[in-house]
Amino acid sequence: MSGTPSVTPVTVLGLGAMGSALSTAFLDGGHPVTVWNRTPAKAGPLTARGAVAAADPREAVRAADLVVLCVLDYAAAYDTLGAVGDALNGRALVHLTNGTPAQAREFAQWATQRGAHYVDGGIMSTPPMIGDSGSLVLYSGDRTGFDAHRSTLERLGAARWLGSDPGAAALHDIALLSGMYGLFAGHLHAAALIASEGGSVTEFTTELLIPFLERMMVPMKYSSREIDSGEFADQEASIAMQATAFVNIIESTAAQGVDPALLIPMRDLYHRAAAEGRDPSELLAKKAGR
Amino acid sequence: MSGTPSVTPVTVLGLGAMGSALSTAFLDGGHPVTVWNRTPAKAGPLTARGAVAAADPREAVRAADLVVLCVLDYAAAYDTLGAVGDALNGRALVHLTNGTPAQAREFAQWATQRGAHYVDGGIMSTPPMIGDSGSLVLYSGDRTGFDAHRSTLERLGAARWLGSDPGAAALHDIALLSGMYGLFAGHLHAAALIASEGGSVTEFTTELLIPFLERMMVPMKYSSREIDSGEFADQEASIAMQATAFVNIIESTAAQGVDPALLIPMRDLYHRAAAEGRDPSELLAKKAGR
Ligand SMILES: NC(=O)c1ccc[n+]([C@@H]2O[C@H](COP(=O)([O-])OP(=O)(O)OC[C@H]3O[C@@H](n4cnc5c(N)ncnc54)[C@H](OP(=O)(O)O)[C@@H]3O)[C@@H](O)[C@H]2O)c1
Ligand SMILES: NC(=O)c1ccc[n+]([C@@H]2O[C@H](COP(=O)([O-])OP(=O)(O)OC[C@H]3O[C@@H](n4cnc5c(N)ncnc54)[C@H](OP(=O)(O)O)[C@@H]3O)[C@@H](O)[C@H]2O)c1
Repeated sequence: MSGTPSVTPVTVLGLGAMGSALSTAFLDGGHPVTVWNRTPAKAGPLTARGAVAAADPREAVRAADLVVLCVLDYAAAYDTLGAVGDALNGRALVHLTNGTPAQAREFAQWATQRGAHYVDGGIMSTPPMIGDSGSLVLYSGDRTGFDAHRSTLERLGAARWLGSDPGAAALHDIALLSGMYGLFAGHLHAAALIASEGGSVTEFTTELLIPFLERMMVPMKYSSREIDSGEFADQEASIAMQATAFVNIIESTAAQGVDPALLIPMRDLYHRAAAEGRDPSELLAKKAGR
Repeated sequence: MSGTPSVTPVTVLGLGAMGSALSTAFLDGGHPVTVWNRTPAKAGPLTARGAVAAADPREAVRAADLVVLCVLDYAAAYDTLGAVGDALNGRALVHLTNGTPAQAREFAQWATQRGAHYVDGGIMSTPPMIGDSGSLVLYSGDRTGFDAHRSTLERLGAARWLGSDPGAAALHDIALLSGMYGLFAGHLHAAALIASEGGSVTEFTTELLIPFLERMMVPMKYSSREIDSGEFADQEASIAMQATAFVNIIESTAAQGVDPALLIPMRDLYHRAAAEGRDPSELLAKKAGR
């Protein structure tokens, strides 16, 4: 594999909402782009902008050293690459289809057996964000493949390398999405409380909630250090107090006519932690090799 | 009531962890401070710093125009002020005990009947944070009482006025705490995933999760506007896609040996929203007067 001048050719397999956005970002960066999609019509807007449509996945793969695959799921990924024969040999395969760490590891083995430099990725952006400064893509797996094409991949957004385990990108992807859905759950719950009395959710969110949550990132860092070390300072008083505070929150929520469902398991976790004298994080986590 | 030069005397009733921190912040600001606590010994550290210990709540209330009350709960608040007779008449009573909006409204009525300018408050800080730049206290109720003592109250942290409804501070307090526990739930879930493979939770939280969540505050603002207007753009595709993504997240979490409990109600909410073609927020909220 050679380095990556800005004219490095790229192949993109899969032209759904995401694959089309990826192709567009490469075209915007001046790269020769070859595309393929199961339903050929979706290549239209891209060939109009200079992309070349390949007749089949094998022809597409052979058109570039860097092959980006982004389809619905892993079944679609195997379908797409199943008949490319030896074409993957020596090429970098960057796989951006969403999946589990286990799926990524299995696919890495499959692709490595066919001679590919396999890089797995997790896209932490929506299609319209691809190529923007706020866009982020996580990568892990074959370092040679990543290094050879890093600057090309940076057309999609910041490129974060997570090490040689091909499952790491998927694991971090799921972890970040979990964090995001927790954030959104808290917001939905809070918004329902404010709306229950006719208050402006926008004003509350912008002026109070967001600045408050930004300050609450600090205790999250402390708690992370405790989780890493397994040593939890001053827990009992604080967990017991929070377990009590939760009763108030849930009761007040119900009294406002709002369904408190989203925070019930969190309350239960704190109550169990208080009863067992342990940190809430200890009740959720299985720690590897400890 | 007069204005608030920096020497405005203050009375603090209740010297638990929080009441002691409040008293200390007023002393630090140069205010004459009169204190009372059910268990008198807790006044010791404060009288050593110049506070005056009153013999009973009535004597304490009569010592200042501004009376701050911070005890365990509303039962303790009624216990404390039950025997002060007409002493509250004409004074500002700033009540910082935690409670529900309904409790605050009832107590406001009780105190107003006794001639007090009743201000209810919600402390969004821990005792060590009181007086720091990051500290925040929400207030609502009697505007005259608040305005007369705003600069004194700002010794405790930023003072945020939420209007004349004495229940508003408590409602916003609960809403902010709900948002915080959602954030923490997402963090605990994500941390458990990272720990399940022996990764550094601190590194993950600091370098990936916090910057990611900060970017995700933007969609929270959009969704707030939709909740306020009741008009949800482009929902169906996005909710259905997220409902599907949740299956992946929950399954991958379980496959990592991590308890996915914290996000289960959020998944259920998205699934119900997708099935009913509604926004998740519509399934939680009761909107006032709509
Ligand atoms: N959209 C997002 O916001 C977002 C964000 C992060 C990650 N992702 C991930 O990116 C991947 C693609 O998402 P998307 O939004 O582009 O989905 P999409 O718009 O639904 O597109 C799905 C793509 O997969 C192809 N496909 C499905 N089954 C196939 C099969 N058996 N053989 C070959 N191709 C097949 C489709 O081809 P046809 O056109 O022929 O149907 C289409 O190109 C997913 O894994 C998704 O989780 C998406
Ligand atoms: N600590 C925090 O992080 C925090 C943060 C925000 C809000 N708050 C709120 O602040 C309030 C006080 O919390 P705290 O941390 O100071 O609690 P604390 O340390 O447990 O102190 C409780 C206080 O209430 C008094 N008390 C209890 N029952 C009483 C009764 N029947 N009559 C008179 N006084 C009584 C106690 O007096 P004795 O000394 O005689 O027992 C003590 O002064 C609570 O509503 C809490 O939710 C606390």
